[in-house]
Amino acid sequence: MSAPLRIAVGGLGTVGVGTVSLLRENAALLSVRCGCAIEVVAVSARDRTKDRGIDLAGLEWVDDPVALANTGCDVVVELIGGENGPALALVEQALERGKAVVTANKALIAHHGEALASIAEANDAPLAFEAAVAGGIPILKTLREGLAANRVSRVTGILNGTCNYMLSDMRATGAPFDKVLAEAQRLGYAEADPTFDIDGVDAAHKLAILTGLAFGCRIDFGSVHIEGIRHISPLDIAFADELGYRIKLLGIASRDEAGLVQRVHPCMVAQGAAIAAVEGVMNAVLVKGDFVDATVYEGRGAGAGPTASAVVADIVDIARGSRTPAFSVPVESLETVATLPIQERVGPYYIRLMVVDQSGVFADIAACLRDHEVSMESLIQRVRSPDDPVPVVITTHDVREAAMTAALEQIAALDTVLEPPRMIRIESL
Amino acid sequence: MSAPLRIAVGGLGTVGVGTVSLLRENAALLSVRCGCAIEVVAVSARDRTKDRGIDLAGLEWVDDPVALANTGCDVVVELIGGENGPALALVEQALERGKAVVTANKALIAHHGEALASIAEANDAPLAFEAAVAGGIPILKTLREGLAANRVSRVTGILNGTCNYMLSDMRATGAPFDKVLAEAQRLGYAEADPTFDIDGVDAAHKLAILTGLAFGCRIDFGSVHIEGIRHISPLDIAFADELGYRIKLLGIASRDEAGLVQRVHPCMVAQGAAIAAVEGVMNAVLVKGDFVDATVYEGRGAGAGPTASAVVADIVDIARGSRTPAFSVPVESLETVATLPIQERVGPYYIRLMVVDQSGVFADIAACLRDHEVSMESLIQRVRSPDDPVPVVITTHDVREAAMTAALEQIAALDTVLEPPRMIRIESL
Repeated sequence: MSAPLRIAVGGLGTVGVGTVSLLRENAALLSVRCGCAIEVVAVSARDRTKDRGIDLAGLEWVDDPVALANTGCDVVVELIGGENGPALALVEQALERGKAVVTANKALIAHHGEALASIAEANDAPLAFEAAVAGGIPILKTLREGLAANRVSRVTGILNGTCNYMLSDMRATGAPFDKVLAEAQRLGYAEADPTFDIDGVDAAHKLAILTGLAFGCRIDFGSVHIEGIRHISPLDIAFADELGYRIKLLGIASRDEAGLVQRVHPCMVAQGAAIAAVEGVMNAVLVKGDFVDATVYEGRGAGAGPTASAVVADIVDIARGSRTPAFSVPVESLETVATLPIQERVGPYYIRLMVVDQSGVFADIAACLRDHEVSMESLIQRVRSPDDPVPVVITTHDVREAAMTAALEQIAALDTVLEPPRMIRIESL
Repeated sequence: MSAPLRIAVGGLGTVGVGTVSLLRENAALLSVRCGCAIEVVAVSARDRTKDRGIDLAGLEWVDDPVALANTGCDVVVELIGGENGPALALVEQALERGKAVVTANKALIAHHGEALASIAEANDAPLAFEAAVAGGIPILKTLREGLAANRVSRVTGILNGTCNYMLSDMRATGAPFDKVLAEAQRLGYAEADPTFDIDGVDAAHKLAILTGLAFGCRIDFGSVHIEGIRHISPLDIAFADELGYRIKLLGIASRDEAGLVQRVHPCMVAQGAAIAAVEGVMNAVLVKGDFVDATVYEGRGAGAGPTASAVVADIVDIARGSRTPAFSVPVESLETVATLPIQERVGPYYIRLMVVDQSGVFADIAACLRDHEVSMESLIQRVRSPDDPVPVVITTHDVREAAMTAALEQIAALDTVLEPPRMIRIESL
């Protein structure tokens, strides 16, 4: 049995407390698995007096989180959050001092991952962030190691539990977005400021990290096409059901000869697809590799337990002396690959229009589609109501997004079309 | 870039050829990921002249596979198969010479895993067998590393693609077992001698390995309770559908205060369970840990590509210098835990009887159940036919298997019960 591995934890929110609890509760198990004890030696958080339900006696308390890098620890666990500020400063300083860093901070890695991995390499210090993507699912290890023999062609994931919970709930209850959001906030599934989740930014952070790892290319968060779920209405969910689809907020990354795809947006997926059955706060990631073919990984994407599970898995790797590069290959080997603009996407689309229920409406819409060579696959108009706007739903055959967008602009300008058209991409998985 | 990692491959069947092909096809990718080239330097197989579709020029050909351990290789890949014979001899000799060993041989590891891991430790030689369980799904790495922070309570899996294909096909076509087996053999999904697959032995090998890894206990293949799928009839599949279940051959391992459970048998699982939707030759494994909660892993369980993917992932780990003990903890730390006898199982049961359609039959059956305190949950008798045996299906509430068995023995002895009763355990996942 070697000397204990000494841990400093920055940030004692839900995940920080969960991590300390896990390290204590499973201490005996972990020391056998690691060949050494794992001991929390120092912590830092905003409020020293707050009762967090864990005993902090005997631990060094550091007021300035960045100063954790100067304690006698071997590993700094960064659970402060935020892409800049003390989180970034702490991680930089720790790595520069040759200390291992484990973080759950997806924004930090999506924005600064490459720079931090460079510092890590220069100082021979491990940098690990399994908890940053898909909570308890060991998807980063799977991409970096378990599927390391493969050229990965595509990664698709339900990466945000809040959105998946809300979409599941909208379908189950038929309630509108705002009501479901309020309920999710009451239950703690959505933050008081839900913007990062419902606008797709959180999922995009995770997707950018997955993209870098899966394809060995430099993280390029700025190129991720991002749409959230604010515009999804109960009407769309009902039509999806009728058409044999589920609406999911997916992160999709793929790479082929044409280039790199990185996008987060609501998708219609076939009800029979494995990912369509993943409901509530669960996350799921589908990875397609050239030899392994399709594999799927499911589990809880958030919460103290699953996130602590991922944080401590990284600590176990460090304790065991595993040294895989943060992004699977050395930073200098990461390729610079341009992300294709979303207008290059080719695939089918779901379109919902709110129109005046009068003759000739369809002819005008059909003309707009024809003008841009958009081929209709189906058209549904269930409701008849001469006095109110009625929904018309169109699904298309494969078409380039640029053409679809142009057709929709023309359609939106029609007098008989009363609201901005709603468009949801149909994805086969 | 370090010196190349030199590989010797024993066995050039589907997986051997797949492994050599993968190493060549993805050579550039792999050398970046590993920091060194991976080169096949020696091979051994039965027939030197056979055309396998790969170029063996420039490779050292060794007639006696065991002699691969004496070549100038760093890693021996054992793809010969069989639990003893040359496979065992090769792995032992290679480890004794301090060479790393990668094998896809589940029988070998289920029977000799602990002894081999001891030799590996004594010689500081890595022993890896990701490909032995669930093909391309990196489930061993997930248990050993990805979920290393957790005390695992339960592992449940569809571990045999042949059985899952056959059960899926029986449900889709309504065809009887023998016909579906013949078709599976024709399509190459079942071996000419299908015994190991359809009698559950293959799944039991894999389960014994998973049990050792998940719970840190000594592999005890002999204690696995094993039943195959020979007795599953189209009638049972139809009744399962009616009752809201799917029939799956599952491997189930769990550990709690009461002891260890290791069993492979057909199960009725709720149609809504994630694992119920896994059809055809796909494998799936559900792992429950104390912090991560439930996670699910799906992918192809066999075939050249997925198996080669797992073999080469192990090689990549070795190239990167990762050194996790084969069973997650050193051999001396493996616990000896007794497996509970199947008669201790407590749960609900599905029972199908073929009875004479006459009054009084139910009273006799009900009396048998009452005598052993087996409580009925439902009873179905759809068909009426005074001249032929008719099926009667009973589902029970939770009951101990010993009581269920005793009741079934009494029922089987009734004059009005014409065939041996069929019993399938109902499992909640």
